[in-house]
Amino acid sequence: MAVGPGTLPQFFPVKGVKTGIVSAGIKKPGRKDLVVIELAPGSRVAGIFTTNQFCAAPVQLCRRHLQAAEPRFLLINTGNANAGTGEPGMRDAVACCAALAENAGVELQAVLPFSTGVIGEPLPAGRIIDALPALLAGTAEDRWADAAAGIMTTDTRAKGASRQLHLGEHRVNISGISKGAGMIRPNMATMLGFIATDAKLAPELLSRWSAELGERSFNRITIDGDTSTNDACMLMATGQYGGPEIDADSPFADDLKTALQEVYLELAHAIVRDGEGATKFVTIEVSRAASVQEALDVAFTVAHSPLVKTALFASDPNWGRILAAVGRAGVEGLDLQALAIFLGDVCLVRNGGRADDYSEERGQAMMNQEEITIHIDLGRGEVSERVWTCDLSHDYVTINAEYRT
Amino acid sequence: MAVGPGTLPQFFPVKGVKTGIVSAGIKKPGRKDLVVIELAPGSRVAGIFTTNQFCAAPVQLCRRHLQAAEPRFLLINTGNANAGTGEPGMRDAVACCAALAENAGVELQAVLPFSTGVIGEPLPAGRIIDALPALLAGTAEDRWADAAAGIMTTDTRAKGASRQLHLGEHRVNISGISKGAGMIRPNMATMLGFIATDAKLAPELLSRWSAELGERSFNRITIDGDTSTNDACMLMATGQYGGPEIDADSPFADDLKTALQEVYLELAHAIVRDGEGATKFVTIEVSRAASVQEALDVAFTVAHSPLVKTALFASDPNWGRILAAVGRAGVEGLDLQALAIFLGDVCLVRNGGRADDYSEERGQAMMNQEEITIHIDLGRGEVSERVWTCDLSHDYVTINAEYRT
Repeated sequence: MAVGPGTLPQFFPVKGVKTGIVSAGIKKPGRKDLVVIELAPGSRVAGIFTTNQFCAAPVQLCRRHLQAAEPRFLLINTGNANAGTGEPGMRDAVACCAALAENAGVELQAVLPFSTGVIGEPLPAGRIIDALPALLAGTAEDRWADAAAGIMTTDTRAKGASRQLHLGEHRVNISGISKGAGMIRPNMATMLGFIATDAKLAPELLSRWSAELGERSFNRITIDGDTSTNDACMLMATGQYGGPEIDADSPFADDLKTALQEVYLELAHAIVRDGEGATKFVTIEVSRAASVQEALDVAFTVAHSPLVKTALFASDPNWGRILAAVGRAGVEGLDLQALAIFLGDVCLVRNGGRADDYSEERGQAMMNQEEITIHIDLGRGEVSERVWTCDLSHDYVTINAEYRT
Repeated sequence: MAVGPGTLPQFFPVKGVKTGIVSAGIKKPGRKDLVVIELAPGSRVAGIFTTNQFCAAPVQLCRRHLQAAEPRFLLINTGNANAGTGEPGMRDAVACCAALAENAGVELQAVLPFSTGVIGEPLPAGRIIDALPALLAGTAEDRWADAAAGIMTTDTRAKGASRQLHLGEHRVNISGISKGAGMIRPNMATMLGFIATDAKLAPELLSRWSAELGERSFNRITIDGDTSTNDACMLMATGQYGGPEIDADSPFADDLKTALQEVYLELAHAIVRDGEGATKFVTIEVSRAASVQEALDVAFTVAHSPLVKTALFASDPNWGRILAAVGRAGVEGLDLQALAIFLGDVCLVRNGGRADDYSEERGQAMMNQEEITIHIDLGRGEVSERVWTCDLSHDYVTINAEYRT
């Protein structure tokens, strides 16, 4: 199951970026499970990573390499997370990067590793290394769709987004891919996102945007509240668009940021739409909160509530469960009298109880839709935040009860 | 589904306590949905309540009445939580208490109200009030099993525990009942517990024990992480056992506390065993933590993880999911090298990765059992804590997707 249309966009090639994909036989023979993103010299990369204390070997190594050298290759494998694998896992990650570096004639630290899949199994590094020559030989500017397919695990759809815009006389391309369908919650997930542009971004702006754009997209989605050991979202800028370097004072910064934000949001939303077993795409808006933190606490508590999620699956406008979730979000001094809860434009709760004009029929009509907005007005401040989630269905249980077996 | 034997114990009558039960037709005609617990004059009551900010009208009223007068009656209805019902809900709760008080010839504040069921529907107070004369006429000392059945909602089993012990020459009886199967998590749940003893307890000790015993039992269980608006757990002491008042310095205090703790734990565990859709009863032990808070953060993060819970349902020893949950529990500076994870006596994780002597067969053999202990040794302190939970099954989704309809 998945919510909404799942077709990939037409990808605009990004100057200075090539992608490649092969089958290394990591978990299943014949499955395309190894992807490379090759960046032209002079490219800049920034990223955000999982906050899980037990982040995987490739995450640790990727962070180190990012500090040490100009990135030239991103190597991504599915089928194995190389997490919970101890020292051997780190050696395997280094070995894969070193082999790619040698094949491509770059330094070790120019290779950034990413892994996703089962935790705790040894990485079959030998198979990955054997597949590298074919992988590197097949890179091209027009293989974004292949790359999107190549990073899938329990995903039912490849995920991509792309934009083209003009900054003055110069054309800028943005293309991105993402993966993830479970173990998804704020501060990433078994979530990978790779967004590339041929704009030339000042290093400081690249880092800031990578953090800001990721925070308001990938870190605002949740499927099951589980945070993976392997999440990463990378922003790459090759600088080959032909125009000047863009910094915070550039007249083009706002347009470019808006386009990038759209790509980030589309990629993040695509993960929720493909959430394991998802039949609904749910936006949770919290408004008039006293702080960002309390807005997010309320939004995520509602988004994680199994009772709310099963009611969404059943298309049941059971607002009591929403109310109970808001009440246990840990926000001190909430005033039930000031609170209002809406489903789409239908008011469910106002003045401390069920809204006078609420009817089960109107609630049901909103709930029957595939895309639902739950709006919670806390009535105590000026801050609004949004998160996105999906429902909890039988298929979620089936998928996760049968993943390894 | 439910885990383990579900038979009620033989209840020891508690001197000075009578219970009664009738059908008031609150939600379904004919269903026994109204229970009273009548206490002899001189009884003392202490309780703990939900921490949900939107606690229901009966919870608010019960707290007020507890402060104001000597409690004589506990009135419990199922089928309607009287939560999210605004001012009318409070008037309804008061009206029910007032009617009982008038029928029984006691003051209003001597009646403590409790409600459980659907949130947000008006309480049919008239039907409750009409049923009170029959309810009061039918109370008896030997109707504990009826009362246990009368407070059920989505429970598939009535839940009770009972002990008899001798304190010197005097016999003390303890009997308790509980209900709850969903919306269960620490700091109560749609969880009700009523524990009575005929021991004579000093008021200070009664309050302290009510808090302590509840904290280490009802506040250590979780089914779905949702906290209800209506939870309450009450400890009642009639003082009719014939012996002297027991205070903290009494030579009998330890024995009595131990027996009460057993009853609290049995009642709390019965809720988990009857968790909505539960097929496993899971103990999560965290040892060598640096503080109680971090032990509980880790234990509850594992207990709430949908990925861990679906793996338990599938009897899949997927320790990577446990590891990932520990890593995202918000505990700073966890050392993967110092960590060990056990399933029963089988070590899964040690020295930063899969334990050398682990085999899938041994993990599978432990996972196949109906009662499972996950032990997480953090290797950084002296504190141990335990929580109890169940798995996440298809039946959980079915039950909660169909509850109202």
